[in-house]
Amino acid sequence: MRSALSHLECSKCGSRYDADAPQQLCRCGAPLLARYDLRSAAQTFTRKNIAAREPSLWRYAELLPLRDMLHRVSLNETMTPLAQLSAFGSEIGLSDLRLKDDGALPTGSFKARGAAIGVSRAKELGIGRFGMPTNGNAGGAWSAYGARAGVEAYIVMPRSAPAIHRLECAMTGAHLFLVNGLIGDAGRIIGKAVTECGLYDASTLKEPYRIEGKKTLGFEIVEQLHWNVPDVLLYPTGGGVGIIGIYKALMELRETGLIGEKLPRMVAVQAEGCAPIVRACHERKRESQTWQDPHTIAFGINVPKALGDFLVLDAIYATGGTAIAVSNGAMERLQRRLAETEGLLICPEGAATLAAAQQLREQGWIAANEVVVAINTGSGLKYGDVPYPQPRLLERDADLPIA
Amino acid sequence: MRSALSHLECSKCGSRYDADAPQQLCRCGAPLLARYDLRSAAQTFTRKNIAAREPSLWRYAELLPLRDMLHRVSLNETMTPLAQLSAFGSEIGLSDLRLKDDGALPTGSFKARGAAIGVSRAKELGIGRFGMPTNGNAGGAWSAYGARAGVEAYIVMPRSAPAIHRLECAMTGAHLFLVNGLIGDAGRIIGKAVTECGLYDASTLKEPYRIEGKKTLGFEIVEQLHWNVPDVLLYPTGGGVGIIGIYKALMELRETGLIGEKLPRMVAVQAEGCAPIVRACHERKRESQTWQDPHTIAFGINVPKALGDFLVLDAIYATGGTAIAVSNGAMERLQRRLAETEGLLICPEGAATLAAAQQLREQGWIAANEVVVAINTGSGLKYGDVPYPQPRLLERDADLPIA
Repeated sequence: MRSALSHLECSKCGSRYDADAPQQLCRCGAPLLARYDLRSAAQTFTRKNIAAREPSLWRYAELLPLRDMLHRVSLNETMTPLAQLSAFGSEIGLSDLRLKDDGALPTGSFKARGAAIGVSRAKELGIGRFGMPTNGNAGGAWSAYGARAGVEAYIVMPRSAPAIHRLECAMTGAHLFLVNGLIGDAGRIIGKAVTECGLYDASTLKEPYRIEGKKTLGFEIVEQLHWNVPDVLLYPTGGGVGIIGIYKALMELRETGLIGEKLPRMVAVQAEGCAPIVRACHERKRESQTWQDPHTIAFGINVPKALGDFLVLDAIYATGGTAIAVSNGAMERLQRRLAETEGLLICPEGAATLAAAQQLREQGWIAANEVVVAINTGSGLKYGDVPYPQPRLLERDADLPIA
Repeated sequence: MRSALSHLECSKCGSRYDADAPQQLCRCGAPLLARYDLRSAAQTFTRKNIAAREPSLWRYAELLPLRDMLHRVSLNETMTPLAQLSAFGSEIGLSDLRLKDDGALPTGSFKARGAAIGVSRAKELGIGRFGMPTNGNAGGAWSAYGARAGVEAYIVMPRSAPAIHRLECAMTGAHLFLVNGLIGDAGRIIGKAVTECGLYDASTLKEPYRIEGKKTLGFEIVEQLHWNVPDVLLYPTGGGVGIIGIYKALMELRETGLIGEKLPRMVAVQAEGCAPIVRACHERKRESQTWQDPHTIAFGINVPKALGDFLVLDAIYATGGTAIAVSNGAMERLQRRLAETEGLLICPEGAATLAAAQQLREQGWIAANEVVVAINTGSGLKYGDVPYPQPRLLERDADLPIA
């Protein structure tokens, strides 16, 4: 169970970097990806071996970058549920719809995957402090894992970000700042501190290991489907690290012989008010254009231009996937309908994938009997201001209104 | 893996009831407890068999009341972490302090245990609708499991209960009402509907199966300690179902031969502003007196008189335990300190157990090297209004203040 990490490679120009020193972007400005000696990994990275290991992302150790498991920083991650949505699925005409529910992770979001691996590797490489801009969930996760690791976190988030994220960062002892602006402004403030003060830059895709954590989403889904891939996989796409990570996981599973040639059709789901990937995909472009005046209730996917947009588009094109935008109204409606039919409280970004599944089914792009996996990126408990029917107030001596 | 449920027995007068019909309290007014054929259960309820089963509370099937696993209502429970608190523990002088973190359960609280078993069994017994008063977490959990089961939930909560619980109930489609009063007023409104409309009463200890879910907390802790019991076990005590359930679990484990004679010293932790069990314990009483003018930030343990108080006191006396009250300030301080040192965001009730551990260590009641388990009953993400240091606001062109 040793990491087969070999080196880092630029996702654009192919340049090679030493994986055992702290690295950020390639000189050409593109993200670096971790590469493994997959032949060596395949000797122990087998279905049977993996099945016998602990039920968490750490079971995929050979294809994780951590050299020494003693450096592992954990908040007790579990393998998240791949829940069958029978009642809800039948309402929208899908007989095998599953929800991969990453709201069950520590800090209540999928960002725990990236933070677990990213912070562990930062600690292993001797990094004492890092900085990042965030719309919320990533800041909460990296602060919590930072606290566990004893690594200092500098977090800058828009003042409009939900209050729960502020609480997470401040409680876990991060150096937290709000900016009177948007995520881009937060990024510029962090960027300056990186250049001028030598802060390690933990921004999306600017360090190479967060994506290695996200990758485990793909490993888990395939393993939970008994080493089969679904027909369709829907992902709420902001920075896109998840979709890039899952695609990377599928490529690595293929090369180690754990799955065959078939890949799921990958669907990037965005909000109508911020859909740069959707526009680029429909125009068959290799990169996206910055979205003007972005706005959506799904704060986590409010990203006007992703650094890794070309990797997201690559994954979509290579798998015969697509990209689709959904409305705020559809997200709110399906968030509530899922809660009513299945008892599951998910985030608006997760609800976006269900809205997309419904639309693609109606259009015939998804067939009724296909295996469809929708990804929920966060717990609905972190979204206190969704609209819901207000309860009636009873006086103390009232009778319960009951049919 | 079949339930060894045999019958229901009154916890006070010992009367016997049929377990395969819906039951509420005993005619004498005391709670009914599920009894099992432990000799028959012991044939398959072995350490080795259990270890091979799925990592959730359902693994203890022989000692759960569900007759047919097809009636199981699940929101994808996990075995919750028993996290080693090395950094925090050393600060308060304990070398082996663990946190049993039930915030990791569906709906973000330990109430999911009771709801999973309670709603499953209600469904199995053909109950179509139930009602309950709640301070919040129980209502959220029973609504969610009710939605999953297709069983109607009538929930009444004080208007002062945290907004997140309202959201949980309303989103999952419960019939939710607020009362212009306290939990006792909510209970009276439900009580009337039970009498007059035949609603099934799912109030704390008024149906016999919620406690069977809570019991699994005890099973999990002992199994996670490799079938050893801790020296001390601290539980935040409101209605007290958890402490009663854990004690019941220990008795059943002893009778099936899975543990020996040793029991943990059980500690009921209450808030200084609502401590009826603490008062009764110090006076060596068998029952508690209603606490006048109860108030605490830990809403979940704001229970002035528990129906099962005598069972809580029995468990404390039988194990050489104690009861202790902690202040709001201590809860807030330790909630924050745990987040800073361990990266874990817990609820005020959970923090109360850590405050109690610290005080009992200082008093010498707990020795430095004892194995101590503190129970966290809910995720800190559900408590958005805890005080924390407010972050500084930066303008868009600011430099990051960094040393």
